[in-house]
Amino acid sequence: MPDSFIAAPPKDLLLDEGFRFIHGQTIAPFTIRYETFGELNADRSNAILVCHALSASAHPAGRYRDDPDEKPGWWDGLIGYGKGIDLEKYFVICANLPGSCYGTTAPSSVDPASGHPYGSRFPWPTIEDMVHSQKVLLDRLGITRLRAVAGGSLGGMQVLMWAALYPELMDSIITMAAGAAVPVQGVAWHLIGRKMIESDARFNGGDYYDHPESLRGLQVARMVGHMTYLSAQALQSKFGRRRRGNTRQFEIDSYFEHQGRKFAAQYDANSYIRVQAAMDEMDLEEKYGSLQKAFAKWRGRTLLVSFDTDWLFPVGDVERVESAMVANGTDVRHERIASTNGHDTFLIDYGLITPPVTSFLSSLP
Amino acid sequence: MPDSFIAAPPKDLLLDEGFRFIHGQTIAPFTIRYETFGELNADRSNAILVCHALSASAHPAGRYRDDPDEKPGWWDGLIGYGKGIDLEKYFVICANLPGSCYGTTAPSSVDPASGHPYGSRFPWPTIEDMVHSQKVLLDRLGITRLRAVAGGSLGGMQVLMWAALYPELMDSIITMAAGAAVPVQGVAWHLIGRKMIESDARFNGGDYYDHPESLRGLQVARMVGHMTYLSAQALQSKFGRRRRGNTRQFEIDSYFEHQGRKFAAQYDANSYIRVQAAMDEMDLEEKYGSLQKAFAKWRGRTLLVSFDTDWLFPVGDVERVESAMVANGTDVRHERIASTNGHDTFLIDYGLITPPVTSFLSSLP
Repeated sequence: MPDSFIAAPPKDLLLDEGFRFIHGQTIAPFTIRYETFGELNADRSNAILVCHALSASAHPAGRYRDDPDEKPGWWDGLIGYGKGIDLEKYFVICANLPGSCYGTTAPSSVDPASGHPYGSRFPWPTIEDMVHSQKVLLDRLGITRLRAVAGGSLGGMQVLMWAALYPELMDSIITMAAGAAVPVQGVAWHLIGRKMIESDARFNGGDYYDHPESLRGLQVARMVGHMTYLSAQALQSKFGRRRRGNTRQFEIDSYFEHQGRKFAAQYDANSYIRVQAAMDEMDLEEKYGSLQKAFAKWRGRTLLVSFDTDWLFPVGDVERVESAMVANGTDVRHERIASTNGHDTFLIDYGLITPPVTSFLSSLP
Repeated sequence: MPDSFIAAPPKDLLLDEGFRFIHGQTIAPFTIRYETFGELNADRSNAILVCHALSASAHPAGRYRDDPDEKPGWWDGLIGYGKGIDLEKYFVICANLPGSCYGTTAPSSVDPASGHPYGSRFPWPTIEDMVHSQKVLLDRLGITRLRAVAGGSLGGMQVLMWAALYPELMDSIITMAAGAAVPVQGVAWHLIGRKMIESDARFNGGDYYDHPESLRGLQVARMVGHMTYLSAQALQSKFGRRRRGNTRQFEIDSYFEHQGRKFAAQYDANSYIRVQAAMDEMDLEEKYGSLQKAFAKWRGRTLLVSFDTDWLFPVGDVERVESAMVANGTDVRHERIASTNGHDTFLIDYGLITPPVTSFLSSLP
């Protein structure tokens, strides 16, 4: 895989008039943090919008500095010069979601009216809000048509919402490890994680910013989330029942403690519960009556990628999206990929996910 | 299925000299709560020891009163007059585990030396301790030979430990939904549940008995445990993404809240973390070097029952026990049962689990 490139710093779109959430609240002013990669061509026809997942940011590719120790963007194996989403050809845009805490106005942002973080008073966004915020950004950038919208997991759910809300705006969509609603097993695990955060005495209903330490509830909730991304096979081969050094501590315990602390030190609990709840609330079948109706106006091309060991979005749930699109007479490819890495395959196995993306994009008329 | 019978009240074996845990601590005096069912025959050859699972008690069958509203014992569909473990033929014994809080001396028991509950000072039992306590009971009851030892889940793990520790004491063993060690996926979920309990501010290291309310950490940990007992199929068919009444609350959320509160009101957090940790620590392969060595002296007959949707103890883990016993040249039957009820099948689908037990017991020489 070619090495990653040096990315430009993130940019901010400041909406003085604010952003109105679908549930009615307006947060003003409102900042949308975003990044762009590659060059927009003269006829503005080569833009690809990339949607990020639960804990990711507007930084999908590249490194900010020429430092091999810096971790590159979250989809760096797929997006880059000569990669699956080739920056020689495409202009890529990615925006941090409303609710997330990586630059876009968030619960941890200071409310200018009070001088304190919004905290519990910050709205609970929906996937529609996420899509609308991306649409506002595209409008401001003067991009009226997209070559593709792409994303995995929560990002893939946004992609499907794009197809439902703005079916005439793009030529194609690409989703990985995503369906039109989180199945109950994922919902249940998410709920359990949120209950842990909300029952942490220090959470205080969401107004905890006076204390600098991270929330234990968020650390443990992250471990729950982490479990849903891993297949039984990956857990077995990476950790098994092995103990750490000469101790009785299980290696998986040590790993989870490390990952939980690291995550809770950099991600905000109010953002976590909001973005995850938005994921659980999305249900295109419920919203439109059927998946066929949800995609009734979508006429573009679709690439759906699923993974056989993904139990958060089992292959059957992706097949339901496929069937609805087939029934609507649209051009849909469903790549069923065998992998041991479960849900996280879309962030790990670039050798597996790149060929279908390359082939799909090059096949577009 | 014939209705359940009226059970005798539980009995207590009081050990004035106390019970010595394998890690070295002795708790004295020490009470073992147990129940017996049916009649011991003249030559004392018809006794079956039944081992209970994580949150169960010494009450596997029958009702204490003639009240159809009273829930019968936890294996009532299998144990009874004319049932799979037929009380017309067998004398059944079941003891509450050391560490559990249903009558046997437990962390919530008052330490006569201090006048306060043991709390954090109570030992962390092992599966060996559980088996030893049952052996002490049998010795006091004058039972020197068992027709069978039977159990599911943690109960089945005790059964395998019986075969390793006292291979000459019984004619046969029956396990359901159990292997010789909890695979890493179950260990990880258990650890996450224990972290939730231990990070509840009110847990206070295990010394929380001054406060009457149940621990929220235990409620949520129970939800985690509950998830590991359910198959994805059962979750989908029982709950799906359905909402409760006219609310936006998911039915699974409402169900888990109810079950979590109910459980935490009747089970003790110190017991939960101890009994579950004992389950995770058991590893016959680690202890003996190999499963074949663990069962080297076991010459009796074995019935292993596994369920295709049990992801806590997948069929492959039961097959490893089977292979070791086959390699040792012993008589082992492995019944692979197809069911949608996951791990909990052994507590639910009596129509599926009874025939192999009946057939196995009647085949004993």
